[in-house]
Amino acid sequence: MSAQVVPLPRKQPSLAPILGLTATAMNSVNAIILDRMQSEIPLIPALAGHLISGGGKRMRPMLTLAGAELVGYNGARHHKLAAAVEFIHTATLLHDDVVDGSEQRRGKSAANIIFGNPATVLVGDFLFSRAFELMVEDGSLKVLKILSSASAIIAQGEVDQLTAQRKIETSEERYLHIIGAKTAALFAAASRISAVVAECSEAEERALEDYGRNLGIAFQLVDDAIDYDSASADMGKDQGDDFREGKMTLPVILAYARGNSEERKFWEEAIAGFRTEDEDLAHAIGLIRKHDAVVSTRERARHFAQRACDALSMFPDVAARQAMVEAAQFAVSRGY
Amino acid sequence: MSAQVVPLPRKQPSLAPILGLTATAMNSVNAIILDRMQSEIPLIPALAGHLISGGGKRMRPMLTLAGAELVGYNGARHHKLAAAVEFIHTATLLHDDVVDGSEQRRGKSAANIIFGNPATVLVGDFLFSRAFELMVEDGSLKVLKILSSASAIIAQGEVDQLTAQRKIETSEERYLHIIGAKTAALFAAASRISAVVAECSEAEERALEDYGRNLGIAFQLVDDAIDYDSASADMGKDQGDDFREGKMTLPVILAYARGNSEERKFWEEAIAGFRTEDEDLAHAIGLIRKHDAVVSTRERARHFAQRACDALSMFPDVAARQAMVEAAQFAVSRGY
Repeated sequence: MSAQVVPLPRKQPSLAPILGLTATAMNSVNAIILDRMQSEIPLIPALAGHLISGGGKRMRPMLTLAGAELVGYNGARHHKLAAAVEFIHTATLLHDDVVDGSEQRRGKSAANIIFGNPATVLVGDFLFSRAFELMVEDGSLKVLKILSSASAIIAQGEVDQLTAQRKIETSEERYLHIIGAKTAALFAAASRISAVVAECSEAEERALEDYGRNLGIAFQLVDDAIDYDSASADMGKDQGDDFREGKMTLPVILAYARGNSEERKFWEEAIAGFRTEDEDLAHAIGLIRKHDAVVSTRERARHFAQRACDALSMFPDVAARQAMVEAAQFAVSRGY
Repeated sequence: MSAQVVPLPRKQPSLAPILGLTATAMNSVNAIILDRMQSEIPLIPALAGHLISGGGKRMRPMLTLAGAELVGYNGARHHKLAAAVEFIHTATLLHDDVVDGSEQRRGKSAANIIFGNPATVLVGDFLFSRAFELMVEDGSLKVLKILSSASAIIAQGEVDQLTAQRKIETSEERYLHIIGAKTAALFAAASRISAVVAECSEAEERALEDYGRNLGIAFQLVDDAIDYDSASADMGKDQGDDFREGKMTLPVILAYARGNSEERKFWEEAIAGFRTEDEDLAHAIGLIRKHDAVVSTRERARHFAQRACDALSMFPDVAARQAMVEAAQFAVSRGY
């Protein structure tokens, strides 16, 4: 009988360290968010609060807070800016839900379903304006430049995604370009501004920006994988939404590329909108499993998460860095 | 036979002087607008260009340019800022058309009809972000503060208008509050920033802001009068839109207040959305004429136009001031 090597159980990565690291500061950010979403028009806090209090993970402001810990920033300027980042994100979520005709968001009815499209569009505009007011109060033109540029890139990414919708010929390159804009640009900006308020070197700014961008890409890849992952826990999003909307996400791009001619015909019809039944979705998930397209999408996500972690190598190996590394590992383990 | 006094024909006020005053600078502004609405995503300039090239009057950037002339500003910073103002305005028009389900804008099909609601919302977001990028490039935190605050006020005004829709009890005070936010805030900001770039006194800044605000209120009152003015020339807007949407504009508020109980019953049903036929609109226009509600709305507009002109009294009586006064007179003569 030979000796058996029993591997130690590998700890599941968790958000607990980064949540702990940023908990106190996040209380301040949440207070600013609650304060600044108020308005004399009662519909505004009602609608904004529905989404903002609805259990979002506050990933993006958390990046600003964690980055500030990493570089040893002692001030409080980043609280307001983190709130501005969350307002920009919330504004884009509200507009996304109108654009996609979403019915669910964060496990509840989407704002557009409860309050209607008009109010949802306008409250998004309000939060977006509030974000800029917060940045102006802070007074850093550099931060304003980073976040206004990110906002323009996000909007372009969203339009690009709309243009690619129902276009089976969308390539992996174009897909990465789209998610780099619509999702990763705000992760990158949120992370970078922590270095700006702390007056770090240009290299440190870039490192934090790279961490955020790569994490954002990994995050979106996993989101898109989960939408076709039959093994995944429910993430509070209607599974199959991307399929029915004809969105060209990586699982579809890979399954299409790896498929035979009969399978390709199915994808062409499905993405064009002619196969939207539950049995079509089941067939799609089957093809995606057959070609390991979710597995490959998650592998791509791990690649970007690794790049995110490596971008932090210039910083000392303090608790903040460890927490940020684990957050990246967590991002790619979601839904398992 | 007694001598007869023949009054000199009073010259119709015209936009010609202010157009002449700002023509050269407006060419620069238009070049910036065309340049900065570009994007690698072709749908963006296509959609933005549909509205921007669609014959808007460029009223708001014109206020920035005229104000700069009035205070003798010699630089060119205001060109970029005037373009930013027009981008904010265009973004709100795009979102308005989605919110109202408009079919026509500036005499053409509205962008949402041609390009759909999703793209229209997102291109609005893009232009809004671009506006902030232009302001950041200019680098004045004071201008950023004025325009980000105006943007938040506009969004609140739009939500407030939505809340007041189909509410017959909306008062004249509330109506004035709404148009002060949704329309006049940007007129005020556009006008005020000319004084900021020229480094004028606080009093001059306030004077230009007051000119813009009062002009904006007058402008909106006349817009709302025209929608019920049977004698008015077609302004490229579907007459009766406000009526069918149950918007509580001043002509309705006055006709309701001045009406007998039978008429009030009609208005209650109409604003609630139960009387939307052409014959109902004809009846509404008849009641508005009976109670001189369009005439009174235009009188209110003249009051605010007069306040706009008087706000300029601290400036010397140069050609720029005369042109701005005539522009205010023109604003209230529109549609006759």
